[in-house]
Amino acid sequence: MRTHHCNELRESHIGQTVQLIGWVNSARDQGGVIFIDLRDREGVTQCVFRAEVSQEASDLSHKLRVEDVVQITGTVEARLKTADVDTTNDKLDTGKIEIVATELIIVNKADVLPFQLDKELSNEDLRMKYRYLDLRRARMSKNIRQRSVITSAARRYLDESGFFEIETPILSNPTPEGARDFLVPSRLNPGRFYALPQAPQQYKQLLMVAGLEKYFQIARCFRDEDLRADRQPEFTQIDIEASFVNQEDIIKLVEGLLAGMFKAGLGIDVPSPFPRMTYREAEDIYGSDKPDTRFDMKITDLADVFAATEFKIFRGTLDGGGVVRAINAKGFAGITTGQMNRLNEIAVQAGLPVKNLAFIKLENGEYKSPLWKIFTDSEKEAVIAKLDLADGDIVFFAAGSRESVSTILGRVRTECAVMMELNNDPTKFNFLWVVDFPLLAHDEESGHWVAVHHPFTRPHPDDIEKLDAGDYANVRAVAYDVVLNGYELGGGSIRIHEKDLQSKMFSVLGVGPEEQQVKFGHLLDAFRFGAPPHGGLALGLDRIAMLVAGEDSIREVIAFPKNNKGADLMAQSPCTIEHKLLREVYVQSTYKDPKLATEAKA
Amino acid sequence: MRTHHCNELRESHIGQTVQLIGWVNSARDQGGVIFIDLRDREGVTQCVFRAEVSQEASDLSHKLRVEDVVQITGTVEARLKTADVDTTNDKLDTGKIEIVATELIIVNKADVLPFQLDKELSNEDLRMKYRYLDLRRARMSKNIRQRSVITSAARRYLDESGFFEIETPILSNPTPEGARDFLVPSRLNPGRFYALPQAPQQYKQLLMVAGLEKYFQIARCFRDEDLRADRQPEFTQIDIEASFVNQEDIIKLVEGLLAGMFKAGLGIDVPSPFPRMTYREAEDIYGSDKPDTRFDMKITDLADVFAATEFKIFRGTLDGGGVVRAINAKGFAGITTGQMNRLNEIAVQAGLPVKNLAFIKLENGEYKSPLWKIFTDSEKEAVIAKLDLADGDIVFFAAGSRESVSTILGRVRTECAVMMELNNDPTKFNFLWVVDFPLLAHDEESGHWVAVHHPFTRPHPDDIEKLDAGDYANVRAVAYDVVLNGYELGGGSIRIHEKDLQSKMFSVLGVGPEEQQVKFGHLLDAFRFGAPPHGGLALGLDRIAMLVAGEDSIREVIAFPKNNKGADLMAQSPCTIEHKLLREVYVQSTYKDPKLATEAKA
Repeated sequence: MRTHHCNELRESHIGQTVQLIGWVNSARDQGGVIFIDLRDREGVTQCVFRAEVSQEASDLSHKLRVEDVVQITGTVEARLKTADVDTTNDKLDTGKIEIVATELIIVNKADVLPFQLDKELSNEDLRMKYRYLDLRRARMSKNIRQRSVITSAARRYLDESGFFEIETPILSNPTPEGARDFLVPSRLNPGRFYALPQAPQQYKQLLMVAGLEKYFQIARCFRDEDLRADRQPEFTQIDIEASFVNQEDIIKLVEGLLAGMFKAGLGIDVPSPFPRMTYREAEDIYGSDKPDTRFDMKITDLADVFAATEFKIFRGTLDGGGVVRAINAKGFAGITTGQMNRLNEIAVQAGLPVKNLAFIKLENGEYKSPLWKIFTDSEKEAVIAKLDLADGDIVFFAAGSRESVSTILGRVRTECAVMMELNNDPTKFNFLWVVDFPLLAHDEESGHWVAVHHPFTRPHPDDIEKLDAGDYANVRAVAYDVVLNGYELGGGSIRIHEKDLQSKMFSVLGVGPEEQQVKFGHLLDAFRFGAPPHGGLALGLDRIAMLVAGEDSIREVIAFPKNNKGADLMAQSPCTIEHKLLREVYVQSTYKDPKLATEAKA
Repeated sequence: MRTHHCNELRESHIGQTVQLIGWVNSARDQGGVIFIDLRDREGVTQCVFRAEVSQEASDLSHKLRVEDVVQITGTVEARLKTADVDTTNDKLDTGKIEIVATELIIVNKADVLPFQLDKELSNEDLRMKYRYLDLRRARMSKNIRQRSVITSAARRYLDESGFFEIETPILSNPTPEGARDFLVPSRLNPGRFYALPQAPQQYKQLLMVAGLEKYFQIARCFRDEDLRADRQPEFTQIDIEASFVNQEDIIKLVEGLLAGMFKAGLGIDVPSPFPRMTYREAEDIYGSDKPDTRFDMKITDLADVFAATEFKIFRGTLDGGGVVRAINAKGFAGITTGQMNRLNEIAVQAGLPVKNLAFIKLENGEYKSPLWKIFTDSEKEAVIAKLDLADGDIVFFAAGSRESVSTILGRVRTECAVMMELNNDPTKFNFLWVVDFPLLAHDEESGHWVAVHHPFTRPHPDDIEKLDAGDYANVRAVAYDVVLNGYELGGGSIRIHEKDLQSKMFSVLGVGPEEQQVKFGHLLDAFRFGAPPHGGLALGLDRIAMLVAGEDSIREVIAFPKNNKGADLMAQSPCTIEHKLLREVYVQSTYKDPKLATEAKA
């Protein structure tokens, strides 16, 4: 239906007869002659309908409307360019030529669109309802294409690294200790349900037991969560598992993988190896386990500065085993009252026990702070030296437990960076590994120890004694996260491959022998028959695609995303289902009939 | 953990110190010295533990059990080969060398396995329960690897052909006019349900409306069917859609795609273009819309032979507008009584109205048949000539409607081929296109016209007048299937892209304007805003992988298949779910409580 696409014709084609097909991107009448930009997936080409070339095409061209699908035959000609008039367009690859149409066929007429495609639309619901139009925008089309390109690069890399892509079931089992599962009633097994996988974790480990050694899958995963923030009920991860590997092997593999994806998507070279820091360092220095290292503003410990302080709050904190720390937002002394209020809000949300952050601001040689006068001269000097406090800076303090201070200053640091616009250089990609995560965390609510990563994560070999001794808080895991610009791209671990250790781990997590057998019997069984040492990692493809595209939301890189109620406004999904069909799968809705709902709760 | 894999060491490595890791594939004691075959994903290497080299390794080697995971360090040596003794093994790529172990580490001990890996196991349930062991067999490992290889080849080909892989939702909407859907209750939308997609049909068409032009996806699809035959509740298809294409474009693309997959999987060159026949020809000549053309045995029409017959049954059939046809199973006159009974059974199942197939058998110059004596001499001559009837042949006749005769003789033809072993040459791959499928079929049960392909299929441009005139039975579709050795590999069509034609099509199918708006509103809407001409195809990846692997069941090329009750015996899925979790998604089971079940049925 065409000889060329709409971003193909150049001056070298002048004189040729060509045929193009696509959408009318724009149309204008210049003294009775219609000019259109014809658009297809690849770009646009200008077409002009001159009566002297074809009366018929010229007549028809007056009826053209934006987004009509048209097929145009014509001759490639140079655009007019003289000393006086220049109709060429340097911004377009096809900007030096135009098609003078000899024939015009309107393939499919378009009605007036519900919104214009050349303007950003803030009404998200309208965008979603007409997603097939929203995706016609150059930005969205580029995003979808770029996602395809980086996904393909990922596959190629893993392929060449000897990994087999192996599909694991979507009709699967509930994830123990995970988020909420989506459930699927089974018709052939009355009263029973499949669950959609939150990750193919156990299947991929079983593939290692099966001896397949190197597995990957670009896998759809599902979590029935409340969709605050930028979550989707279904998402895609690059799921990787390998046998006979250590942490170093996985790190090297993933650095190559991400480099390949960013090269394919953006043409940039990602330097490797990525920097690494331990979880402890990340928390202490950046107040986050996924630090944004595009800017410094490190958290500085002031224990030595205030070792002899008589300032009550600091004294009490330090004597009680807590910490006093600060960050210097360099050059941000001009912070507005509104910004200050916002920072205080954030600090309070993060756990600051008072209403306002303690700060010191140095403006025009003057220290502005309720604190400053409390500090001794030597404390002042030490603060200035240690925090590199210079004119125009503002320093924020926090005192309390190591964890709470990290959380508060970490959040304040990130927010300052947003306010100071330190985080919006589109060419800056700061990759980072965070390693040595803790194995276990104490859940205050339940009183149980829970797995920080998941129950299959291998304890650090140096910390096995601590595990045996019940010193759970200090056992590290062989677990690692890869971070980019403050986003966790993915995480993984070396796994347990011994039945006894796995069983012990379950016991620590409060899962008794019987429950272990019911929930994890097949995995524990599998470990009895020659399970190889193995480990892996999973990367969030949606998030990577989002960062490559320079977008703020993963919805911008998913063709048909759900809204924050889990609904697809275009396809009107989810929908109601006839009772008859529900009965066939042995369920009924408790929602419509309030009586049944009450009974169910009783 | 290793310097080489287990299929890497050759004579050129002799003298080198190497480290291997893997599974003990077999172990034997030869005069107090243990020899093992060490196995990893790539192959096996012989290792020997000599006390004079390492007493420690030698001692430990006596404790080795099959499937232990071990790490072995040692020296590559030539296997003994003298005039008297030859311990080399030509069947192994590593058969000229062995590792003389200096160190042995038992990485993970294996218990006694529930079955032996070097023997075929007919107990399917046991295989499935311990699937992670079953997958260790060389055959299964090869199948999984080969599937990965052909999938990767498919992606590479489509990638290079300018197709973007685009993910469409799994949490989707019911498929109208499809099979039964799997349903997923929504927690955030009480009383509403997602359906798992039977195919991404509407999404891919909407991507064409979105202007993305070339889409593919290796897509998981779901059908809640009774799992007789070789079906799985979830399966994978290579889903393709393109804009501005005609049937010829799709056929060329898919021929290249399949050629690429078979080249990658089996190293064979598939000749193209594939032969083509119309649906009508396929039915008339092979009695099937997916003919196996590896063998001839064509259905021959005998209308002219029996134009003047006085044989009552033939006479009546021909006068009533029916047909008399036959196949010649060449050389099969020696058919056993058992085989004959089986053929009669199959013919009856296929609709033969009497108990026995009419046949003529020519053995040692003698015609054996109740029919023969009824035929006139000229009829006899014509039958012999037309069917090429020679000594040793047997001819089967059927008389009746064109459709019923096709069905009966088609089934008999296939079964004869099985009995005659005409269909088991593993090197024969007969690809074929079947084109010009009918658009509509009359469903006797409901009295409605139903879509043969699906409601979005484009009527043949030459048959639009018949559609307008209500002559539905004779409207062809622009629909095509690709067939291999009697299996349908996939099918597709050029789609309707005009709102009015689509709406008319729905009306013909008995879907009124209101129902159209509810069920297909977004698609009809989309067609109003400049929908391009488009079409596509979907290939069954599981089946292709099965045929490449030379297997009889798709279960052999799926890592974790379900059994014929839709259950995963390893993961014990589906499973029961706590009432509390069901209530959270606003459903309850009608199965456990007989009272509720009764109410639901009332």
